[in-house]
Amino acid sequence: MGQSERLVEVWRGGMLESQHRGHAVVCNAKGEVVHGWGDPNQMIFPRSSAKMLQALPLVESGAADAAGLTTEQLALSCASHQGAAIHTDRVSRWLNDMGLGNDDLRCGPQWPADQPAKIGLIKTDDSPCRIHNNCSGKHAGFLTLSRHMGVTDPEYVEVDHPIQLAIKQAFEEVTDEVSPGYGIDGCSAPNHACTVLGMGRAMAGFAAAKEDGDARARASVRLREAMMLHPDLVAGETRACTELMRTAPGKVALKTGAEAFFIAIIPDLQLGVALKIEDGATRASECAIAAILVKLGVLDPAHPDVKKRLNPDVVNFAGLVTGEIRPAETLLAM
Amino acid sequence: MGQSERLVEVWRGGMLESQHRGHAVVCNAKGEVVHGWGDPNQMIFPRSSAKMLQALPLVESGAADAAGLTTEQLALSCASHQGAAIHTDRVSRWLNDMGLGNDDLRCGPQWPADQPAKIGLIKTDDSPCRIHNNCSGKHAGFLTLSRHMGVTDPEYVEVDHPIQLAIKQAFEEVTDEVSPGYGIDGCSAPNHACTVLGMGRAMAGFAAAKEDGDARARASVRLREAMMLHPDLVAGETRACTELMRTAPGKVALKTGAEAFFIAIIPDLQLGVALKIEDGATRASECAIAAILVKLGVLDPAHPDVKKRLNPDVVNFAGLVTGEIRPAETLLAM
Repeated sequence: MGQSERLVEVWRGGMLESQHRGHAVVCNAKGEVVHGWGDPNQMIFPRSSAKMLQALPLVESGAADAAGLTTEQLALSCASHQGAAIHTDRVSRWLNDMGLGNDDLRCGPQWPADQPAKIGLIKTDDSPCRIHNNCSGKHAGFLTLSRHMGVTDPEYVEVDHPIQLAIKQAFEEVTDEVSPGYGIDGCSAPNHACTVLGMGRAMAGFAAAKEDGDARARASVRLREAMMLHPDLVAGETRACTELMRTAPGKVALKTGAEAFFIAIIPDLQLGVALKIEDGATRASECAIAAILVKLGVLDPAHPDVKKRLNPDVVNFAGLVTGEIRPAETLLAM
Repeated sequence: MGQSERLVEVWRGGMLESQHRGHAVVCNAKGEVVHGWGDPNQMIFPRSSAKMLQALPLVESGAADAAGLTTEQLALSCASHQGAAIHTDRVSRWLNDMGLGNDDLRCGPQWPADQPAKIGLIKTDDSPCRIHNNCSGKHAGFLTLSRHMGVTDPEYVEVDHPIQLAIKQAFEEVTDEVSPGYGIDGCSAPNHACTVLGMGRAMAGFAAAKEDGDARARASVRLREAMMLHPDLVAGETRACTELMRTAPGKVALKTGAEAFFIAIIPDLQLGVALKIEDGATRASECAIAAILVKLGVLDPAHPDVKKRLNPDVVNFAGLVTGEIRPAETLLAM
């Protein structure tokens, strides 16, 4: 990996106990780096932070309109939801409306992160299904696109499936890079590699897109607006994406990804943010994205839901505050 | 922090997706660094990896013998157990034998990591108590020592309580350092800072201790032997300390700590190992300690319980292998 920079610190007893390094960029609509940390050319997997890119062909192709998808469904197609009833009910109905069901999904079953849903399954000796998978909304979108394209091959997560080829093309166009390869994601779909800068550039494209633009621009606007309109569907209660978006309605679309990726789309400023914590720690990616968005004036550091990512207390089992997580100087000084 | 070194890599789709840096030492009985990575003088909190140091006064003082503690109880006094019945039953009896109970513990309640215990509590709408806290065995040891010393102050986790002063003295003697400060641990007890080298030196002292030595040496032997005799009590089923110790009976005593600290005591080689992953990731500390112990000839890389820490597959929700975790070259080349 390229030279990373310390972005987040974990303190205890007045001493630095742990630290997190990473790479981050803030890009403008021209694809220029307005602020950068670490190595903007670091190659990464954006993981679930790429979901709005993976949803572009769904909207651009006309598949979303042909199927009459609502803004809720567009938000779910970009979501890493936590398997709460508000998520699984909607994905079930979506599949049902297509005459499809759980078995048509190619993501594996996942225990819901939503506590009531998880406890409900445990108490009834039940186990999760594929609809509980955090990516099931994205996969419902994949199935919608596949049907619209008239593809009969049900193995829609294969890298050479027509919908995955369409997604790869969109991905390379908006990142303005030729992807050097892909990994298989947690949900079994291909996840294409790009640089941190490539993702920042793509997010700036989403931020700067206008409703009177071309098909891609219009699709970008609809997806980012759907995310901001339904923060609860993009992740879920207690989750960073949901809670941070709610503090600044219409100001920012946020999406986390596994292994500590995070992106932000800021329409008013026409800026995109992309960051990767090199060790994959979510506590650090949440702190770093909050710090950057506070510095850009998008989030209010005094809001409790911002503070709990930007500068959370470390609390022990007895409820004592034993330390804190905070952004490194380099993030505060931008 | 001092200059750390890449110790562990996370790969996906043939690309390095994440990495973990840290500091580590292998020390001999003279306190010399036999192998080192990163900065041996990095100041750290050893967290639960210091439990056998915190248990020294319990044994040295004669408190353990006066109370008739068994090897099981000595192992529990060094444990970060996972709240399984085998742990909580023994700690409950221990407290009961002293005429004490849950309310005398000063650690907070913690949900057991043991799945059957956790599911049992959920299904009965119950909540965990202090005895479930992973440190409850250490705290039972604290109470045993406090009573033996004739101290009536029940607030045994206060930093100036006589037992904590005795623990600090032992800690500074075996690390051969003056601790620059302390943090409050997850269980509310003070946790003194030292260097990675200081912990390596202390562990080498445990490894080289002889049964015919002084009171400290005899206490060191008894604690390390108790840990190796009862791997299931030191952590629990599925946990790294337990499973790795079982693969090499009598060859190594192992103890993890929060924020990715890990130590090993190797009696036959009279070596001690201490390591800190700078970002606090357990997947990395487990991989790194396994790699060092394989290189030292203590663990067998072909054993499945070693392999699953040394070089685990990354598996997704559908059961597909999507990547791997592996030690960095620098650990393999020692």
